[in-house]
Amino acid sequence: MANKKIFLNESEMPTHWYNVVADMPNKPLPPLHPGTRQPVGPQDLAPLFPMELIKQEVSAERYIEIPEEVRNIYKIWRPTPLMRATGLEKALDTPAKIYYKYEGVSPSGSHKPNTAVPQAYYNKMEGVKKISTETGAGQWGTALAFACAQFGLECEIYMVRISYDQKPYRKIMMNTFGADVYPSPSNRTQAGRNILEKDPNSTGSLGIAISEAIERAVADEQTKYSLGSVLNHVLMHQTIIGQEAVKQMEYAGDFPDIVIAPLGGGSNFAGISFPFLQYQLQGKKDVRCIAVEPASCPKLTKGVFRYDFGDTAGYTPLLPMYTLGHNFKPAAIHAGGLRYHGASVICSQLLKDGLIEAQALQQLECFDAGVQFSKAEGIIPAPEATHAIAQVIREAKQAKIEGKEKTILFNLCGHGFVDMQAYADYFEGKLEDHHFTDAELTANLAEIEALQPA
Amino acid sequence: MANKKIFLNESEMPTHWYNVVADMPNKPLPPLHPGTRQPVGPQDLAPLFPMELIKQEVSAERYIEIPEEVRNIYKIWRPTPLMRATGLEKALDTPAKIYYKYEGVSPSGSHKPNTAVPQAYYNKMEGVKKISTETGAGQWGTALAFACAQFGLECEIYMVRISYDQKPYRKIMMNTFGADVYPSPSNRTQAGRNILEKDPNSTGSLGIAISEAIERAVADEQTKYSLGSVLNHVLMHQTIIGQEAVKQMEYAGDFPDIVIAPLGGGSNFAGISFPFLQYQLQGKKDVRCIAVEPASCPKLTKGVFRYDFGDTAGYTPLLPMYTLGHNFKPAAIHAGGLRYHGASVICSQLLKDGLIEAQALQQLECFDAGVQFSKAEGIIPAPEATHAIAQVIREAKQAKIEGKEKTILFNLCGHGFVDMQAYADYFEGKLEDHHFTDAELTANLAEIEALQPA
Repeated sequence: MANKKIFLNESEMPTHWYNVVADMPNKPLPPLHPGTRQPVGPQDLAPLFPMELIKQEVSAERYIEIPEEVRNIYKIWRPTPLMRATGLEKALDTPAKIYYKYEGVSPSGSHKPNTAVPQAYYNKMEGVKKISTETGAGQWGTALAFACAQFGLECEIYMVRISYDQKPYRKIMMNTFGADVYPSPSNRTQAGRNILEKDPNSTGSLGIAISEAIERAVADEQTKYSLGSVLNHVLMHQTIIGQEAVKQMEYAGDFPDIVIAPLGGGSNFAGISFPFLQYQLQGKKDVRCIAVEPASCPKLTKGVFRYDFGDTAGYTPLLPMYTLGHNFKPAAIHAGGLRYHGASVICSQLLKDGLIEAQALQQLECFDAGVQFSKAEGIIPAPEATHAIAQVIREAKQAKIEGKEKTILFNLCGHGFVDMQAYADYFEGKLEDHHFTDAELTANLAEIEALQPA
Repeated sequence: MANKKIFLNESEMPTHWYNVVADMPNKPLPPLHPGTRQPVGPQDLAPLFPMELIKQEVSAERYIEIPEEVRNIYKIWRPTPLMRATGLEKALDTPAKIYYKYEGVSPSGSHKPNTAVPQAYYNKMEGVKKISTETGAGQWGTALAFACAQFGLECEIYMVRISYDQKPYRKIMMNTFGADVYPSPSNRTQAGRNILEKDPNSTGSLGIAISEAIERAVADEQTKYSLGSVLNHVLMHQTIIGQEAVKQMEYAGDFPDIVIAPLGGGSNFAGISFPFLQYQLQGKKDVRCIAVEPASCPKLTKGVFRYDFGDTAGYTPLLPMYTLGHNFKPAAIHAGGLRYHGASVICSQLLKDGLIEAQALQQLECFDAGVQFSKAEGIIPAPEATHAIAQVIREAKQAKIEGKEKTILFNLCGHGFVDMQAYADYFEGKLEDHHFTDAELTANLAEIEALQPA
């Protein structure tokens, strides 16, 4: 038998992140100040982020060096394995070759530490004492808690209340790494109090939790804020996934025809796909990059490309992105990491320019794919990751119909060890598909339009 | 910085298991038939196990080849990484060099699939349709469910009721791999019904669940039974861990002075330590192998070396081992995998002969070690694994006092992603140490003595 997986040595780990902006034909539009509607400058962002991350956010350099201290911590779990999905190929009886990059071996069980570690590092270097952040299902919070522990930073996390109540394991993991976790909306911020005043039983949302974490950072000079997806520098940090995968596919003597990943904010998708997309942007190879979103939160396939806030309270700059509106309330699907109203500026621009594709899938199809994958490959995927797997299965079946030996690569962004309740609900028939209606978007359109620049 | 971890390529994965019996100065005493008190023969075991495993159980061959089909499935997660615990060394400011073998990267998150896969394979080869087994905290059941899925076998699991109720995630993982899971004691067996008659609210025990699984296998010709630890062949399958570690330590230019692992039944400890112990048994190198047990279930340090049953109902052969009595009821500590009344025959003989050491530790010290390790190394260990870590910390502190550069290796047998409730209870001060009293043993001594051969 051929190798099941392809490892890289630590010495082969990439030394630079890849910044796709350098190769984009149309550069991302600038974020705007919500008051002036003028592009925001570094000084506008300085209360939130350390200067080095602000520089990365606006950089057009193709490669940015990964600091040695960050690489040393990456080595706890990186390079991650590239696996050949031989069991799934057999189960599907497909001529397609299926590979996956497995990010579940990280300390928090997903790709999130790839950006949590450098963010904590740059904050530490600039004398920051505490980082505040939000978390939905808890993956991002766990990753940042781990990263802060590595650098002796305090960590204050606003966790969407419904997850705080339903996913206590995630909270305890953050506590184990030494972080303080608060259910959001909380009474600790004005943003939280405003929500609770209107609805004391609010179950929260990612947008609200972002507002709370930002407010805390702005209020304290020694605290800065950290975001787990969406922003340019976050996407760039994740490209270590795809860069490793490029090398590993070379060792396998292969190159993907299709690269697939779920898209919540965009960093998972960016991480695996941009280093392959680079070949296409530079005219060297063709590759289809497919972002998969839940049908219940379809910003890429049903949203509008407009300036919008990244959070509910309107504390962030206005970002040019595919959005369903910053007050959009997605259905309570189990893939918590995909329940965000907007897509990253870079992913949005690439989709607008036809350089990547998007696909919306229902959750029952995704969980069915997750169970099939578990049995065939032995890894129980996180609910977010099942969205990629369902699309992979679609493509593999299509390859069988066409009799084509396509090569498909996807990012298995995390395992499901801490998400087993989702599978229980699926087995017990408690999950339902959600059929998005135009009304869900149109309700927010006027509010969005009012934010556009002249 | 030196490498954080040492990988092996799949081509370097061991091709044979190591059978320590070949090198033991005193061979293990034979299991006895409880009726005749004569050594059991292969025919006595045939209703329970496929013949190939029975042969392995009594083999004195030094090496037994790993079938290619088994190695191909091992490749889903093996070889596992050997890590240098640089973060922990720094936190302890110790001159000791600390390494750990990380088995948490497996499909079920622990070392258990190393034996589940070959057991399922040999059953499949001999035409068995279904495997029955017991599981305590759920690690073993998950591993066997995964292995059965790989070979298209049915899997019927009796899960100790207290875990069934308290650890629903584990049950759902087994379901996801396609297994049927029943709380034990159940009404499906005479052994279960007998217990329920006396105590309808029985929370169960590993000994009871073993009885139920054995009864089911005996009652159906197409069903056989599988055990996740204790037996000679199970220990042998786990030696792939230590054999990989020997090679990886060679690459690191090192050899351990001390090898540490938790001991529940003995397979985890055997897996990491026997391939190193071989050097000592063959007179080539000295190494201290330390088995760590919970102070609440101290068969190695407080038990008696006697023939005893492996289960509560008395269905198994009589095994010569350190035991607290097959009716011993350990305190409800969170390290479910270490709550077993006896130690494997081989480990017991080695301890009796002074070739390995044993240490009993209290759970508060262990959880404290687990939290320290999480922050330092980024991996949250399973409660069982924290017992090894606590002993490692003791040895590392001793090395500091002595100013010696000792090399310590331990088996990080699993991660704690599915055991976070244990950490929550620890943080909330709900956990207590348990001070074992001689009365807990003496209550069982008469029953044990009645089982001894003439």
